[in-house]
Amino acid sequence: MKSGYGKSDQTFLRNYNIRKVRTILREEGPCSRVDLSVKANLDKKTITNIINEMLKNGEVEVVSKSSNGAGRPKENLALNGEYSRCIGLDIGGTHITGVVLDFTGKVLCEHNIDVVNNDSDILFQLCDLVMEELLEKSKLSIDEIDKIGIAFPGHIDIRTGRTVLSENIQGWDDLPILDIFTEKYGKEVMANDCSRLMALAELRYGAGNDERNIIVFDLGLGIGCGIVINRKIFPGSTGMSGEVGHTIVKVDGSRCTCGRNGCIEALASGWALSKQAMDLLKNNESPMLSKTINKNTMIPTTKEIVLAAKLGDDKCIQLLKNAGRYVAIGIINSISIINPSKVIIGGRLIRDNDIFYDEMIKTVKKDAISELIKDMKIEVSALGDLATAIGAATQCFEEFFEYE
Amino acid sequence: MKSGYGKSDQTFLRNYNIRKVRTILREEGPCSRVDLSVKANLDKKTITNIINEMLKNGEVEVVSKSSNGAGRPKENLALNGEYSRCIGLDIGGTHITGVVLDFTGKVLCEHNIDVVNNDSDILFQLCDLVMEELLEKSKLSIDEIDKIGIAFPGHIDIRTGRTVLSENIQGWDDLPILDIFTEKYGKEVMANDCSRLMALAELRYGAGNDERNIIVFDLGLGIGCGIVINRKIFPGSTGMSGEVGHTIVKVDGSRCTCGRNGCIEALASGWALSKQAMDLLKNNESPMLSKTINKNTMIPTTKEIVLAAKLGDDKCIQLLKNAGRYVAIGIINSISIINPSKVIIGGRLIRDNDIFYDEMIKTVKKDAISELIKDMKIEVSALGDLATAIGAATQCFEEFFEYE
Repeated sequence: MKSGYGKSDQTFLRNYNIRKVRTILREEGPCSRVDLSVKANLDKKTITNIINEMLKNGEVEVVSKSSNGAGRPKENLALNGEYSRCIGLDIGGTHITGVVLDFTGKVLCEHNIDVVNNDSDILFQLCDLVMEELLEKSKLSIDEIDKIGIAFPGHIDIRTGRTVLSENIQGWDDLPILDIFTEKYGKEVMANDCSRLMALAELRYGAGNDERNIIVFDLGLGIGCGIVINRKIFPGSTGMSGEVGHTIVKVDGSRCTCGRNGCIEALASGWALSKQAMDLLKNNESPMLSKTINKNTMIPTTKEIVLAAKLGDDKCIQLLKNAGRYVAIGIINSISIINPSKVIIGGRLIRDNDIFYDEMIKTVKKDAISELIKDMKIEVSALGDLATAIGAATQCFEEFFEYE
Repeated sequence: MKSGYGKSDQTFLRNYNIRKVRTILREEGPCSRVDLSVKANLDKKTITNIINEMLKNGEVEVVSKSSNGAGRPKENLALNGEYSRCIGLDIGGTHITGVVLDFTGKVLCEHNIDVVNNDSDILFQLCDLVMEELLEKSKLSIDEIDKIGIAFPGHIDIRTGRTVLSENIQGWDDLPILDIFTEKYGKEVMANDCSRLMALAELRYGAGNDERNIIVFDLGLGIGCGIVINRKIFPGSTGMSGEVGHTIVKVDGSRCTCGRNGCIEALASGWALSKQAMDLLKNNESPMLSKTINKNTMIPTTKEIVLAAKLGDDKCIQLLKNAGRYVAIGIINSISIINPSKVIIGGRLIRDNDIFYDEMIKTVKKDAISELIKDMKIEVSALGDLATAIGAATQCFEEFFEYE
């Protein structure tokens, strides 16, 4: 069969309705049974049955009672955070960030480690460390954690659970990630591309919470985006959507790690900026940068380039502006294809980096098709540096909900 | 409410199941009641009720009986073409093409008029002419036509029914198209972007019939694409998705009609080729083209450029190859973002134009991310020059079906 025609018997309908009620509580906040009946378009008896089961399971709780004077006071119901807790790990080329997230999307605690050496073995040890810290901070035992979600800069082959194309972590280009983590922690593990999970977090709990179709641009060491269509993450046919970093905007431009030329990532990503700044140093073109750089590594980071630019270094200012312009063209091209109602900008590249950010926004507003952006919003990530880790945990809860 | 949570009572379920049965018959061809029960995951009694109603309505017919020796022979059921017929009009910058399509997707007849003067008033008169020819050829009266579907190179503001941004038809940049056609023919009228409707036709009846996520590139006077996500057309937030012609691939490149620089449409569309060829003529760089061109208009068409190239004109060959390369980059960038399982190439620009087509395919295979295209298919439109007109009619039938 070309399409899955789906089940549509009574059992299907029942489970579908339960997922729908959970989704209304997630999206709308506390509701009475009457509210739920109206919003779900289900009769009151069905709602009562569903809520009774959910109260018994502990996935829903009464959070308040309101009375209009006559009759019994109305009970307001909400999802119960304690029903399930998951850990999300965001494993990047420069950091490992973890959170414990509860069923309502509340961050119970967070922990971050900056990574300098991104060798595969060391990364696994650092993951252990972050896990320990998270359990310690949340005062939970591992038994109280239901699942672990992983975000990493690459793709998972859904059929094999192996990583594919993780350019920014050495040794992760072909690893059975799901098996490794499942064995380490004895939990069900889910994994997905970091930009896609950043988008999921913003969609459910952040700047995309009011939108149906969004693109979330994840600007960091690499550049990617997560695409949301009809309030669902769109992974593409083989889980490789959102490779905006490898779209070509300058035919015959700089060489990219992917072996091609003129990709945005080769012109404007964290690693491209480092490379461009190294050339500045080599040619003695940036006196300020040679002061702000860490003398031990001698590889300029975005933070150091931004600092030199803030101190007035013309070459570094120009470098950041150029990068902002190229990323803007990637944004313009993506919205020309997808026509989202909102674009969200996240990732560590925009942190304290106004020169880059302002040039990027200016270019988008100037050069995008005016009809396409006149009603489109552009916002910075609401969840900041935690977005991807929150998304990593959020993926574990998705099966409980229904978005149509 | 942020999401439409949808209806899910018994009436919803009933209508949903009817649409599902129609969809199975559309997608799978003739089925017995037992086949339908298995494929729809519905019990035999429900299927029997649904089929009885459909037989009574005349939307389904018994097409054959098969016997396995024992018991009653099984009846095979199929959609009945005569249940509904719609007209599709593809109104382009260089042609008006019409079809009469029946409920099964069969083209009952077609008619095409090449357009030289694309003035708005004349276009409306030519539409009348195509309508008359279609009714004459199909021997149907207008009363036997249920709806009229329009495809045109621009956008319809869904809220007002007015056209927006129709660069390639003079005077169509702000017209109440739906009202005009409804009044002219006294029928319900639907209208949509031509590239999107080409994609719809290929999805339902052409080269996309086996796929869930596809991009259909419509290469003609302008360049656009239609995006299919989960077997549904994805229109974007405001009906403006698929503007691949206005993605920028050459920063600071040639000026585009949209006022920006370096768009694919400014480098490689039908109109860009004409413009580039005019420069060749002006500078006496293409002796062959000055022979193949129509002396009355002196505006080289793609057909004339292709002919000159086939006769060995180096400059015209180079012009077509460059265009093929730029369109390829648009395809590469689009698949990097969407990750479709198939790309379909349609439109009048590829007709008898091997030099362009071969360069385009060669570039896609060489320069796309290998992981992204290793399992992706690339095919030429199965419906050819009729694709968009078929799509225009197909949109009228979409409400009868259910794709999830």
